[in-house]
Amino acid sequence: MISIKKPSLIIDSLKVKRNIQNMISKLEDVKYLRPHFKTHQSKDISNIFKTLGVKKITVSSVSMAKYFAKDWNDITIAFPVNILEIDDINNLSKKISLNLLVESIDTIVYIKKNLKNKVGVFIKIDTGYNRTGLIIEDIDISRIIDEIENSKMIYFKGFLAHAGHTYSAKNTKEILSIMDNSKKILSRIKNKYIHSFPGIITSYGDTPSCSISDNLTSFDEYRPGNFVYYDIMQYLLGSCKMEDIAVAVACPVVAIHKRRNEIIIYGGGVHLSKEFMRDDNNKISYGYVVELDNFKWNHLDGVSYLKSLSQEHGIVKVSEEIINRIKVGSLIGILPIHSCMTANLLRDSSILV
Amino acid sequence: MISIKKPSLIIDSLKVKRNIQNMISKLEDVKYLRPHFKTHQSKDISNIFKTLGVKKITVSSVSMAKYFAKDWNDITIAFPVNILEIDDINNLSKKISLNLLVESIDTIVYIKKNLKNKVGVFIKIDTGYNRTGLIIEDIDISRIIDEIENSKMIYFKGFLAHAGHTYSAKNTKEILSIMDNSKKILSRIKNKYIHSFPGIITSYGDTPSCSISDNLTSFDEYRPGNFVYYDIMQYLLGSCKMEDIAVAVACPVVAIHKRRNEIIIYGGGVHLSKEFMRDDNNKISYGYVVELDNFKWNHLDGVSYLKSLSQEHGIVKVSEEIINRIKVGSLIGILPIHSCMTANLLRDSSILV
Repeated sequence: MISIKKPSLIIDSLKVKRNIQNMISKLEDVKYLRPHFKTHQSKDISNIFKTLGVKKITVSSVSMAKYFAKDWNDITIAFPVNILEIDDINNLSKKISLNLLVESIDTIVYIKKNLKNKVGVFIKIDTGYNRTGLIIEDIDISRIIDEIENSKMIYFKGFLAHAGHTYSAKNTKEILSIMDNSKKILSRIKNKYIHSFPGIITSYGDTPSCSISDNLTSFDEYRPGNFVYYDIMQYLLGSCKMEDIAVAVACPVVAIHKRRNEIIIYGGGVHLSKEFMRDDNNKISYGYVVELDNFKWNHLDGVSYLKSLSQEHGIVKVSEEIINRIKVGSLIGILPIHSCMTANLLRDSSILV
Repeated sequence: MISIKKPSLIIDSLKVKRNIQNMISKLEDVKYLRPHFKTHQSKDISNIFKTLGVKKITVSSVSMAKYFAKDWNDITIAFPVNILEIDDINNLSKKISLNLLVESIDTIVYIKKNLKNKVGVFIKIDTGYNRTGLIIEDIDISRIIDEIENSKMIYFKGFLAHAGHTYSAKNTKEILSIMDNSKKILSRIKNKYIHSFPGIITSYGDTPSCSISDNLTSFDEYRPGNFVYYDIMQYLLGSCKMEDIAVAVACPVVAIHKRRNEIIIYGGGVHLSKEFMRDDNNKISYGYVVELDNFKWNHLDGVSYLKSLSQEHGIVKVSEEIINRIKVGSLIGILPIHSCMTANLLRDSSILV
């Protein structure tokens, strides 16, 4: 651990591989997996997916697609098309097989007019999350499909949903019921159009339901992302066990306040992000605390937690036992609340072990 | 605005200058200002401070000190010394006048042994924020001073406080009372040691109290940082007017949901950070919405606000009037809740106008 001097993301490659393999083992074939790469945004992790047989990926921005386009030739940008980036989209679709997401007439009309190479288009369906997408009763769906049908540059890929409302589910049963409901919705709309477009598929995302379900055969494609690392949010949702969490942030201890059982770490909102949750003890927590030992970690106890974050500081509440043995200059590990946000912040300070 | 294609931080240089000048005008002399550069971390903004007569700065990490050390030769790292970075500290103190912050015996003993060049040391005092620092009754203060006195590499700079509890104050009166109380505390401890160390000073931070107070003469040095940009948090605290906010994030509109008066922007937690507050209408808001016009902006109305953030998406609630005129592919501006966090995320996507 001697080389870590600043907040750094330690990535346990064995756990990463195990998490990916577990997900693949639930599918009939690895070809049904199109993992979301927004979580890691890392070429090293990308290579692990490759060695495990994954052939296609999901990203959430044109920038990410550009970053991965050297190594992957089948990429879906699972984000409503930002028409301002049409030049970059045209450059990408020259080189790789690119799929876009559309949920508005204006967008489909615009790209139809401005695309220079063939792209696939998914229509985004809202299965209850109420963020993006059209509800299946929306008449805009058939209008968008009409535009696609009349375009030489667009082929219709099918219907895509992200069931982000699993993140606010109360228990794993509710998560599975959201998944089941999404299946009904996507199947219904697919069945309506399958005769006119025999190649269309349903594509479904979100780590909680893909992790909790044993049976990933309801959709034609799965796009979980977070499962590669997991995090405290997923642990509290029931998506993973504590030992599945594949990343920890190593933070230097800079001050110790025995009077209030708190240690101050170099590690703040610019490293961990300001995501928080109520932990097992119903306390607002910005991360769980682990003891680091030669790049491995063990969850400390039920008492220690990251109580608050400033820009560069974190305040960690610890037990009396720990405060008496921790020293200024030692490293403490934080399991992030939301690993996607943390990994994004620490892209340049990551260590794959 | 034609060149903006992705979430970008627009920095209004006229407002930046005005905000800096306003702060300077409250001081007897610009030499009492040591602005905190963690907010902007920008060489362009650094240059504006220079042209307005500022001679010394504050940062919150060794990395930031390294970044600014080419242009500034008097830097305080207002963060408890991270002893793991001792080599970088020694490299810095070879070139510039460097001040460090100490609040623990172990740290002062360590740096005393390992420093290679002379540095100034402030003792961090806790004036009620309960994050870092020692309370003035703590016997460790005199023990740290003893160590300093016996060191050839350390000179005693004085006492430093950051009254971060102003951020949770209920009104401006309470903010001024926190400032006044901090003055009493820092004066008391300074007076105790001024005869033995005639050069020591008191150094005081935080934008809310420095902005609200008309009279910046109580401390020997002021270290506000956020005031250069301000943000919604400062506006709601009463530190600034809406028109003083010097930064807005331009975000492409990617989808429009008339059914629920919401627009989806390309602009998420990785651009704006996940900071939120309850706005004027007591709603949880991740940012205020402004209309952009040739790099200038006007606060839209009391209805529109940034309702939620995912990694790359934002959902903006808007009035019926606005939803009928906004188009996919247009840009909308977001005034950030906490500009320090947002500016850090958009360092590579900033436009100074």
